[in-house]
Amino acid sequence: MIVLFTDFGTDDIYVGQVKAALLKRAPQGTAVVDLLHTVPNFDARAGAHLLAALYPFFPAAAVFMAVVDPGVGSARDAVAMHADGRWFVGPDNGLLSVVAARAPQAQLWRITGRAEDLSVSFHGRDLFAPMVADIAGGQLTSGCLQELPALSVQFGPDDCAEIIYIDHYGNALTGLRAESLARDTRLGVGDVSIAYARVFAEVPAGEVFWYANSVGLVEIAVNRGNAARALGLAVGDSLTLKRS
Amino acid sequence: MIVLFTDFGTDDIYVGQVKAALLKRAPQGTAVVDLLHTVPNFDARAGAHLLAALYPFFPAAAVFMAVVDPGVGSARDAVAMHADGRWFVGPDNGLLSVVAARAPQAQLWRITGRAEDLSVSFHGRDLFAPMVADIAGGQLTSGCLQELPALSVQFGPDDCAEIIYIDHYGNALTGLRAESLARDTRLGVGDVSIAYARVFAEVPAGEVFWYANSVGLVEIAVNRGNAARALGLAVGDSLTLKRS
Amino acid sequence: MIVLFTDFGTDDIYVGQVKAALLKRAPQGTAVVDLLHTVPNFDARAGAHLLAALYPFFPAAAVFMAVVDPGVGSARDAVAMHADGRWFVGPDNGLLSVVAARAPQAQLWRITGRAEDLSVSFHGRDLFAPMVADIAGGQLTSGCLQELPALSVQFGPDDCAEIIYIDHYGNALTGLRAESLARDTRLGVGDVSIAYARVFAEVPAGEVFWYANSVGLVEIAVNRGNAARALGLAVGDSLTLKRS
Repeated sequence: MIVLFTDFGTDDIYVGQVKAALLKRAPQGTAVVDLLHTVPNFDARAGAHLLAALYPFFPAAAVFMAVVDPGVGSARDAVAMHADGRWFVGPDNGLLSVVAARAPQAQLWRITGRAEDLSVSFHGRDLFAPMVADIAGGQLTSGCLQELPALSVQFGPDDCAEIIYIDHYGNALTGLRAESLARDTRLGVGDVSIAYARVFAEVPAGEVFWYANSVGLVEIAVNRGNAARALGLAVGDSLTLKRS
Repeated sequence: MIVLFTDFGTDDIYVGQVKAALLKRAPQGTAVVDLLHTVPNFDARAGAHLLAALYPFFPAAAVFMAVVDPGVGSARDAVAMHADGRWFVGPDNGLLSVVAARAPQAQLWRITGRAEDLSVSFHGRDLFAPMVADIAGGQLTSGCLQELPALSVQFGPDDCAEIIYIDHYGNALTGLRAESLARDTRLGVGDVSIAYARVFAEVPAGEVFWYANSVGLVEIAVNRGNAARALGLAVGDSLTLKRS
Repeated sequence: MIVLFTDFGTDDIYVGQVKAALLKRAPQGTAVVDLLHTVPNFDARAGAHLLAALYPFFPAAAVFMAVVDPGVGSARDAVAMHADGRWFVGPDNGLLSVVAARAPQAQLWRITGRAEDLSVSFHGRDLFAPMVADIAGGQLTSGCLQELPALSVQFGPDDCAEIIYIDHYGNALTGLRAESLARDTRLGVGDVSIAYARVFAEVPAGEVFWYANSVGLVEIAVNRGNAARALGLAVGDSLTLKRS
């Protein structure tokens, strides 16, 4: 299974070209699953924390193409990583670094082979997709990979006390893992202090709460409402924690 | 064929996780088709009328995963239904009830088996997707299904004289079936009274009309324009009918 | 491979129905790739220039279903075209005409067979999809095709000095092919005059530039910013060219 995780946009001209490039080289019948194409634009840090929360819901054989790449065309490296049983391919700009830091072990390679017709602005199609297809087909040749001791940009294993994604319901996902947070913690954002509830149905319609979402992150929500709009939340907003 | 009909959003983190869960258990090569992920948020009634209009365009072997589920985590039941040759799986909150009420016969089961690692907020991934995959594979085991005489929430077979969906052209789909409406009927919404036309090309650019759309519903449109914006239409707006 | 290029919207009820119609008739295992469903609404001319830029990134065996069809239900013809090794199926309203004009050779047929249950408003599902599936399966029967000497609506082979698409980053794609434009050309749009840069990383954050994008078109962008919002750009805006 190939899993796409990008900021290419769901309804733009980029994902279709990536899929054509994948299908050209991947073994027939390989499933290509769109995980997310709306990683906040250019935001490798938010993307890194989202990816670390999401990848465990995909099977061990999965190959992730993770591309949020504002530096395309500059000197940043392209890397392949094997961590926690999955493969990850993307730019060396921190996007893979939270997965790497939290995994018991992560093997890293710099991608040195370059397609002859490599565009300067769409490595997703011209560099990463062929590499991903080859890995999915078990065709990984050492000729174009060079072992790498560590990633260049590392965000580390720690949680990120910020809003990292706002979904279409208006729920605000944070970079905080819920398992590490006591249930009597109040979450502060701007002037607002938010208490925990286990589930939407436990609070009255219209009330703000935080809960442990389905991928293990702390999420700010309003029952049958739009939290981001109600509170004016945006990706990058800082959070404070306080035991009540 | 598995068909997805949800309010999970086309460009969010939810559909990809559902697909991974489906692919894990469904027979290899099962097609998964995204019918709609933008059912109006939390609106089981609008969803019920949309689903009843849309499902006939899918083959008899299709298994629909229909999830619009504001009550996730509360006591609402999960159900499987066999009606008009197709399978439908979803929450027992009315979403499947218009299909059920209009079908000559509908067999119903409560889903009693529960995944061990069932999240409280994402039954689409953890409960419905595995059930849908099993049905698609003919692996339906009676162990986790209990026959049900009737759905708990029933919207009935009648048409819904409201706007139930606004598409990206700005066309407003209603819950009225066009075959039951005389062509000299004028449709009232707010202060506006709207006459019938057979097809877009029959009215001047910019003119409002209603027509029998491609799934058999009455739809309000503006030739080469945006009806929702021009008339200020929203999902839930009431409609009146008057013979002219 | 079947490739979809439409203005049906990514998150609407139309694409899923098209896919069901395709899967019903196409050979098992045929890949269906969504290239674009957000061609500017009703804009066959912008679509024609986009399609001409995009199709070379798909394999020679690809069958394109290209539908931007404001005249559906009127007298416009439906056509099939074989050009540059690919198949294209769509309305004869100019959408296929830039590909046709630039290809060394284009064979054209009018689609004369009509599905019995042809809707008046959704030929994508009822007419074009079955034809595309048949071509993908090599089942093209001459019974429903009539040779055509030329398309009715022709935009010609020339570039289009307008903005033809704005992507989700806010980059504005033009109908100008970059290979024909000297790098010292300044691009004028409204009151603004824009200079060339090779790549995003070569200009400071926030600066406007034009570059040769990954599909060979001239594109207006802002490094780490939103060019369309910054400059108030819209599809259809005219461009001027001036050597500096």
